[in-house]
Amino acid sequence: MNNNRIISLNLNIRGIGKSPTLAINELSKQIENEGKTIYRLGLGQSPFPVPARVVETLKNNAHQKDYLNVNGLEELRKAVAKFHREKDHVNIKPENVLIGPGSKELMFLLQLVYYGDIILPTPCWVSYAPQARIIGRNIKLINTTYNNRWKITAAQLEEFLLRENDKHKPRLLILNYPANPDGCTFNSTELEAIAGVAKKFGVIVLSDEIYGQLHYKGKHISIARFYPEGTIISSGLSKWCGAGGWRLGTFAFPAQFKWLLDPMAAVASETYTSVSAPIQYAAVSAFTGGISIERYLWQTRRILAFLAKESTKILSDAGINVYEPDGAFYLFADFSPFTDKLKSRGIENSKKLCEKLLEETGVAILPGEAFLRQANELTARLAFVNFNGADALAASETVPIDQPVDKSLLLPIVEPVLKAMKKIADWVS
Amino acid sequence: MNNNRIISLNLNIRGIGKSPTLAINELSKQIENEGKTIYRLGLGQSPFPVPARVVETLKNNAHQKDYLNVNGLEELRKAVAKFHREKDHVNIKPENVLIGPGSKELMFLLQLVYYGDIILPTPCWVSYAPQARIIGRNIKLINTTYNNRWKITAAQLEEFLLRENDKHKPRLLILNYPANPDGCTFNSTELEAIAGVAKKFGVIVLSDEIYGQLHYKGKHISIARFYPEGTIISSGLSKWCGAGGWRLGTFAFPAQFKWLLDPMAAVASETYTSVSAPIQYAAVSAFTGGISIERYLWQTRRILAFLAKESTKILSDAGINVYEPDGAFYLFADFSPFTDKLKSRGIENSKKLCEKLLEETGVAILPGEAFLRQANELTARLAFVNFNGADALAASETVPIDQPVDKSLLLPIVEPVLKAMKKIADWVS
Repeated sequence: MNNNRIISLNLNIRGIGKSPTLAINELSKQIENEGKTIYRLGLGQSPFPVPARVVETLKNNAHQKDYLNVNGLEELRKAVAKFHREKDHVNIKPENVLIGPGSKELMFLLQLVYYGDIILPTPCWVSYAPQARIIGRNIKLINTTYNNRWKITAAQLEEFLLRENDKHKPRLLILNYPANPDGCTFNSTELEAIAGVAKKFGVIVLSDEIYGQLHYKGKHISIARFYPEGTIISSGLSKWCGAGGWRLGTFAFPAQFKWLLDPMAAVASETYTSVSAPIQYAAVSAFTGGISIERYLWQTRRILAFLAKESTKILSDAGINVYEPDGAFYLFADFSPFTDKLKSRGIENSKKLCEKLLEETGVAILPGEAFLRQANELTARLAFVNFNGADALAASETVPIDQPVDKSLLLPIVEPVLKAMKKIADWVS
Repeated sequence: MNNNRIISLNLNIRGIGKSPTLAINELSKQIENEGKTIYRLGLGQSPFPVPARVVETLKNNAHQKDYLNVNGLEELRKAVAKFHREKDHVNIKPENVLIGPGSKELMFLLQLVYYGDIILPTPCWVSYAPQARIIGRNIKLINTTYNNRWKITAAQLEEFLLRENDKHKPRLLILNYPANPDGCTFNSTELEAIAGVAKKFGVIVLSDEIYGQLHYKGKHISIARFYPEGTIISSGLSKWCGAGGWRLGTFAFPAQFKWLLDPMAAVASETYTSVSAPIQYAAVSAFTGGISIERYLWQTRRILAFLAKESTKILSDAGINVYEPDGAFYLFADFSPFTDKLKSRGIENSKKLCEKLLEETGVAILPGEAFLRQANELTARLAFVNFNGADALAASETVPIDQPVDKSLLLPIVEPVLKAMKKIADWVS
């Protein structure tokens, strides 16, 4: 085997590293192995255990060994469709649902099958753009601002589409709310306005609602309510069900999108075949829901809302620009008030910011650049998940759900999070 | 959403249906629902349950919820490396192993990342070529013959490579043995000769050994033994462990192939992220092996060998060209001795052959065309898996493993298989 084979790589893939979220996790582990304390605000993994009922269902289905239907177990597609009908008030039928090994894989299939441009408001999740690059799709960025809570506006979208001056171009707009990396979400007025523009220009919306059930007030609204005929809703077990490592994601399509769903299923049948059978059976109980799942959700929301509020306060008090999130477990911090100060310490971009912070304080966060912000912008994502979720759940369960959670109960458990926030505040000021 | 969006599909994907094996299974289910008895010799799924010890390990790890390392759980990669070292006598290290949601998905990643032509001896498994087509790779077919037991020879390969007259072209040769669709395998002399040619021309070998442990005599030999520096060994839980629906596949790379493994892991991190955590923990016990797994393997081999022999006899006696397989659970039948007779019944290609057979006898088999043979060739694959594997295992376990299995014990259990074979024999003569 001679070395000239080394050049035989797909040019779209050369230079793509592991995704930054996974990479920071592996780097943090490495530093930790060297004996240093790491505050892991990097990887966006739910700190909570999978609900007991769902784990039990997995155990009871450990013997399931058959290849399941490519589109997904029928019982599961029924449960997912019902979930969206009840939670989102959108008329999804089981035959409009596609199950995949993570919503990330489904997004990849979508970008592979759909031949169109990808419109991404930034900051955005780290994997949309590399997927487009691997497949060779055009990415069009629309940068949002701190002043607008990192949210794209209908006017911004319309201006962009008018500037493209091509009424017939196939385009896919990816929206994610509550958002990774900032935890902010849209209200119904904003969604309706964006839906109106998308509809007018025939733009398909991929609505990434993986954090929908982690809206702290349980008031997530899907854009599909205003644009059911053009919206694909993406969800899964990873975030609200604490089962990121299980790898199960869901797409709910408009009934009119069989032309897109069918070829995606065809590619699925030539790649991952179907999602792991025991996991699909277990997922039925998660999506079917019920009182125990609802209680789990309300407990986790209350804990996350508490942390969101406390963390925002610590950072805001130190002068960092940051909004209190509406859901999920992220803060997107803008360190621009410290531009001169940081510059004098040799920090002129988000990557350097995160490296220095990790070196000097042991706090691991992700640079704004990873979320497609300009490299020289001093922004970063903080995931407030470095605490024992099982302990926090147990503590929260002792307090009636309609009352505020007892600080003195939670504080000792979530201490690593707030300590890390204070370290950031101290380090920057 | 106007209809002109319907044209916005990747041209490589237009017209790709569900893979034929999955499609025939769904069609058979449909006919069965209409009340007709179906003899399902279509889908290549192991009839045996997952070994009890492995199911137990899955139950014990149902709570595992973390995103695992992209390359795979370290403990599992260690077990897989050891498995190949001990079973195949190839020096695989854990860092040379990549775990994926099925070896099919890993093959897709390989074809996506590696920029080269794909060389396929035919008949071959149904998904290699559609994967190449989706990605846009060139496929070069080398047709084997019934006379050479459907096996490519070193001379054929060399002749093909010389004819291409391009010493530096990056090429990937896919070998599969024991083979789907014919159950035949190579001996060490044949493998050594093919390895010599591949080495000489710098061709990478993807050695699909998913049926390796189902060699009836337990004497599977990997080509990696003769070409360790250029062979990727593909395996997984689907066939020998009866866990097709679990979706776990493995690639073992030469140590020199970090240039290929790393970008594949990078793409994995942007698509499926990692394989389902509970499944990976369970797979550790499967690949670690031990007495209970070895016993399971010997029982399943003995049952399959019995069925292979009996089935071959029924078909041969009827005048159909067929070889007794060396492993796996397939026969590749050549109906060409009946060409004139079939023609008079309006059957002039393999697709028609299978359709008529299904309609007239209820026996579902797959046309040779699906395995990339010429459409007008009268060949088909028969998977002898339509029996209760749990019952067969239980019966087999009552007979010491060094003795031939008692026919009178097995016959009532495997009756649906032999009945289907007789139906085919009767139908054709």
